[in-house]
Amino acid sequence: MNNQILLIDCPDRKGLVYNITKLVYSRDLNIISNQEFVDTAANHFFMRTVIDGNSLDAEFKQQLVDVLPDEANIRLTVIKKRPVVILATKEPHCLGDLLLRNTYGELPCDIKAVISNHTHLQSLVESFGIPYHHVPVGVLSREDHERKVDQFIRKYTPEYLVLAKYMRIFSPKMVRNYPNRIINIHHSFLPAFIGASPYQQAYNRGVKIIGATSHFVTEKLDQGPIISQDVIPVNHTYTAEDMASAGRDVETNVLAKALKLVLEERVFIFEDKTVVFE
Amino acid sequence: MNNQILLIDCPDRKGLVYNITKLVYSRDLNIISNQEFVDTAANHFFMRTVIDGNSLDAEFKQQLVDVLPDEANIRLTVIKKRPVVILATKEPHCLGDLLLRNTYGELPCDIKAVISNHTHLQSLVESFGIPYHHVPVGVLSREDHERKVDQFIRKYTPEYLVLAKYMRIFSPKMVRNYPNRIINIHHSFLPAFIGASPYQQAYNRGVKIIGATSHFVTEKLDQGPIISQDVIPVNHTYTAEDMASAGRDVETNVLAKALKLVLEERVFIFEDKTVVFE
Amino acid sequence: MNNQILLIDCPDRKGLVYNITKLVYSRDLNIISNQEFVDTAANHFFMRTVIDGNSLDAEFKQQLVDVLPDEANIRLTVIKKRPVVILATKEPHCLGDLLLRNTYGELPCDIKAVISNHTHLQSLVESFGIPYHHVPVGVLSREDHERKVDQFIRKYTPEYLVLAKYMRIFSPKMVRNYPNRIINIHHSFLPAFIGASPYQQAYNRGVKIIGATSHFVTEKLDQGPIISQDVIPVNHTYTAEDMASAGRDVETNVLAKALKLVLEERVFIFEDKTVVFE
Amino acid sequence: MNNQILLIDCPDRKGLVYNITKLVYSRDLNIISNQEFVDTAANHFFMRTVIDGNSLDAEFKQQLVDVLPDEANIRLTVIKKRPVVILATKEPHCLGDLLLRNTYGELPCDIKAVISNHTHLQSLVESFGIPYHHVPVGVLSREDHERKVDQFIRKYTPEYLVLAKYMRIFSPKMVRNYPNRIINIHHSFLPAFIGASPYQQAYNRGVKIIGATSHFVTEKLDQGPIISQDVIPVNHTYTAEDMASAGRDVETNVLAKALKLVLEERVFIFEDKTVVFE
Repeated sequence: MNNQILLIDCPDRKGLVYNITKLVYSRDLNIISNQEFVDTAANHFFMRTVIDGNSLDAEFKQQLVDVLPDEANIRLTVIKKRPVVILATKEPHCLGDLLLRNTYGELPCDIKAVISNHTHLQSLVESFGIPYHHVPVGVLSREDHERKVDQFIRKYTPEYLVLAKYMRIFSPKMVRNYPNRIINIHHSFLPAFIGASPYQQAYNRGVKIIGATSHFVTEKLDQGPIISQDVIPVNHTYTAEDMASAGRDVETNVLAKALKLVLEERVFIFEDKTVVFE
Repeated sequence: MNNQILLIDCPDRKGLVYNITKLVYSRDLNIISNQEFVDTAANHFFMRTVIDGNSLDAEFKQQLVDVLPDEANIRLTVIKKRPVVILATKEPHCLGDLLLRNTYGELPCDIKAVISNHTHLQSLVESFGIPYHHVPVGVLSREDHERKVDQFIRKYTPEYLVLAKYMRIFSPKMVRNYPNRIINIHHSFLPAFIGASPYQQAYNRGVKIIGATSHFVTEKLDQGPIISQDVIPVNHTYTAEDMASAGRDVETNVLAKALKLVLEERVFIFEDKTVVFE
Repeated sequence: MNNQILLIDCPDRKGLVYNITKLVYSRDLNIISNQEFVDTAANHFFMRTVIDGNSLDAEFKQQLVDVLPDEANIRLTVIKKRPVVILATKEPHCLGDLLLRNTYGELPCDIKAVISNHTHLQSLVESFGIPYHHVPVGVLSREDHERKVDQFIRKYTPEYLVLAKYMRIFSPKMVRNYPNRIINIHHSFLPAFIGASPYQQAYNRGVKIIGATSHFVTEKLDQGPIISQDVIPVNHTYTAEDMASAGRDVETNVLAKALKLVLEERVFIFEDKTVVFE
Repeated sequence: MNNQILLIDCPDRKGLVYNITKLVYSRDLNIISNQEFVDTAANHFFMRTVIDGNSLDAEFKQQLVDVLPDEANIRLTVIKKRPVVILATKEPHCLGDLLLRNTYGELPCDIKAVISNHTHLQSLVESFGIPYHHVPVGVLSREDHERKVDQFIRKYTPEYLVLAKYMRIFSPKMVRNYPNRIINIHHSFLPAFIGASPYQQAYNRGVKIIGATSHFVTEKLDQGPIISQDVIPVNHTYTAEDMASAGRDVETNVLAKALKLVLEERVFIFEDKTVVFE
């Protein structure tokens, strides 16, 4: 992992790849991999380059600024363990899976804490040696509850918040505090079955496939940029509960995959959609 | 295929399987396969039994009536080539695939004719030796056009109408003429992207999976009982046109599969949903 | 779960379903679900019936014996937490997933202990409050090591042994001690890539899909009856290590699914293959 | 489609992307898309660049030669209808599908003729207005039959030969005549079930998934570079014939996809494997 990752997106124009790779070449560096995409409808250019070694610096970034359009977003980074806080409610499947992956280094993150409005998951989390903060709703207003939750979050200065079946909806204000930094798992194949009880909705409709969607959280419920989706077949023998049970495995896999893509710096957000260089 | 198929659905009660199989046994017949399902929420029983030979008759059916609840639906049938009329517009992929399968006996049907509001598909259909009726819309009202279409359909007394990317919507009256007899392919993973331009909708939403849905047509647009669905992955490099192109293969496969399930007498319709014994 | 499950397999003949359901009806019991299959090539009948309540007994079983062929296998059981011992080596993904599912009641089993030839997984297992037995190979012969492992197993009288990436091969004698009771996960889409280093083999061959297979262990390596399989797409960018990493999720899901099918009494073994009533 | 496609593969070294894009930029041309891959194990570089317009020429190619390693393979091409000859035996599904796609422009090819050792498919092919050459084996030796087949092939100077369920094996000499130009569909998930009767083999093994593989034909049977693979689930109710029937849809889709990838110039062959830029 002794590599640097260069992420650039900007309005498209001729010579972008040339100008960028010229700078890399001038440093006598090797390109491990290079992925580009031009959204021709939006005339926007995306590029993810993995560069051997660790020698690029602010000066290099300034040289990039000089050859790229003014609107360019430039990110020069490395893959390393990012601090993450998880929010959950009662269900253990996504949370437990992330804790396991965290323990065994399958995800480049460092889960700092888990916050929940219930106590159901406390012993699980603590068995992994990770702090668990129970913030009951009780008589608190939504705003007050969220404020208390945010106080715990801020203690850990996470780069990402992961909503691992957190069954409460963040206020627009809360979402704005963590722009493009909150990753949610929704238990349906969005945009089908937005909102509550998607498995019951799926059962009522008699679908033959169910799914799960991981997306960034924006101010519009279940409308944020989709990172990853997957599905499994079901049939008439599935009750809504059976669908929920079968769906748990899909939710678990989709959330883990989405988080991995984000942590490996493979995801661009652009106009309510993602560009994902797998 | 020298077998009879017995399809029964009725309110559930004790002894149904016993009473039905007793009658079969009393005729000294062999059960090739037997599939049952009880919708416990609706307390409704479904059974599909394949019986060796061809000896069951009206008397047997009457004996069934005597031991089953009054509300029982009983169908004693065989798998044989059913007359089918296909409606299409301009796109050849679903139609061409069904014509091939029809020619090679992969589907137990006999495609009697194809009706279209355009001429694009005429030479394809006629190269298979099948009549093609062009019913242009021109200045006709929707009712008049539909009436002319229906006149052609009636000439062939089809058991099923297949809408193989027929881009017009049947009136409620037309739907009522063919209850549970019209099979449509919708180019999305319903209930996502109901209505027009589903691939454009999917593109706009930035989904990572697209799909297709085959369903019976009811008076409510895209709301009929779902027979079969399938999906394929897509990504940010897909334009709406690319999604449409990739989706064509899914549409083709899903429609063929749904039609096969129906023609093999594997599909029950019950309260806006299907029970499919695969 | 207050139901009884009746599993019957025997040579096929007329009247089997009738005779079985007659007995159930004579007890005035309700059939919740009923699945049958006749292997026509082998002329063998399989049936799985879920019966409401808990009243069937040895007398009922004797009545079944009286109406079924002499060779019939009859199992009258319930779904309940079965004692299970897991064997593992160093990899945590399958083991951790099973421990989570065990904790949250997603699998009807009770994991009694984990045995490993290494210490890597000890803290994980013990954090779930489950005994961990380290049986190092060291200078032990294969027979002596296996004997020590079996001594630990016998302490727990498990109904099933689960090999969750246990990288040692049981002797034929050990396999015979647990006939149809040992469930393994193999990290390839069997029968492709039998034996060691399947991901390296898959990489060398340049396949575009990799998979995993859960099967019962028999005396022939990787040849036992297959319970469940699944796959994921890969491409030229995957190294053998990337394939192994991607494959871990498939292995995890396939093993959990296979174990669930077995514990829910859905699996018959017949002549090196399985009949699985999902 | 007014674009040029530049395909380069060569030993990897620093500055390749820079040097290539510099040349493109010097012509004031726009890069529509650019995909690269470095096989780090083999230290080999692959790049596929789509360039706006049609102005690149032999001089440009010479300039590339000057800046690339001596061993570089350089292909400057466009996507256009390539002449193709199909070989088939008796089964219509893959052939019919390709004929439909050919008719409707879904594949950038021009099917010039179909050659078969049987007459079963003659009327199908001729209904599409395409020449059909029947070359019966009869008393001909394998060499003589192949020579006659090749005489028909040569009349059409095809760029690719497609074996659409052609059930005969080409001699090494024949394969050498069309290096990297023969595309086959094998009815199994290779390397499982190499050789004859893969569905019977799959049935005997009791697999839960079956598949199909499209690959380039080399002198080693079923060992050529894999272009595309796909699978579908099966279960104990499938006979070998049912598997073959279900498998036909997979074969059809996989062959069409592989041919599309090749015709769209997305496939590199390197050391018995492919690099596919989808």
